[in-house]
Amino acid sequence: MTSEQEIRAIIQQHQDAIRSKNVDRIMALYDPEAVLFDVKPPFQITGAAAYRRTWEECLPYFPEPNSFGFETRDLAISVSGDMAFAHWLFRFTGDPDHPAMKQWMRITSVARRRNGAWKVVHEHLSVPFDRETGKAVLTLKV
Amino acid sequence: MTSEQEIRAIIQQHQDAIRSKNVDRIMALYDPEAVLFDVKPPFQITGAAAYRRTWEECLPYFPEPNSFGFETRDLAISVSGDMAFAHWLFRFTGDPDHPAMKQWMRITSVARRRNGAWKVVHEHLSVPFDRETGKAVLTLKV
Repeated sequence: MTSEQEIRAIIQQHQDAIRSKNVDRIMALYDPEAVLFDVKPPFQITGAAAYRRTWEECLPYFPEPNSFGFETRDLAISVSGDMAFAHWLFRFTGDPDHPAMKQWMRITSVARRRNGAWKVVHEHLSVPFDRETGKAVLTLKV
Repeated sequence: MTSEQEIRAIIQQHQDAIRSKNVDRIMALYDPEAVLFDVKPPFQITGAAAYRRTWEECLPYFPEPNSFGFETRDLAISVSGDMAFAHWLFRFTGDPDHPAMKQWMRITSVARRRNGAWKVVHEHLSVPFDRETGKAVLTLKV
């Protein structure tokens, strides 16, 4: 596999781990020192152990394991040596009435390769916000 | 200069260009094909030409040139070959009553070196939002 194919495989593993609601499988993809900018407060989460608690808190609000999927748009991957970054837009798919299925998000993910294994060292997840209303914008059509 | 020092210098140039409200100097730091996730809609801006229009629209709302500055926290820079990424938190400083001075933001920036020159190829700028209220969170103390 090329490095780009390896990064694609990791993104797929990440989505599969979330779909199965398996925190161990999700966190296996992160570097212990990863710094995360999540879609919800706080501004910054330092370290995979703290990010694990975020996942443990939010996964119960997701639908049943493997009853939902991902719609991904505009994925771009770029690699240089032992660093790779990717960005894309996504939303969860499945039950259209579930609150988690209604919003698009943007993600930037950076991975480093150490001892032959890629690990996510930084992830930035967000939606834009409307300065007039102070509200988050959750749909692409704005 | 090491590559990390070069990236630090570019971040400084970027802040200086914004402080001087000089769109040409800001945009000189971006790759023409850069993809931007800005703090306000739309979700995604493709290409420096489109991003230039965003700056042209928003700079008039900033205070007078060089009457404001930046407070930066938790800057981390990582380089591999011809790719570098950095992330940090910042807010504008100056007149504390100006709306632009009241909020913190998070930024992830990725640069590629081509023909010896680093250019920003991706930038992701955001604030988190509170799912209960749907509102953007603009202060660090949440």
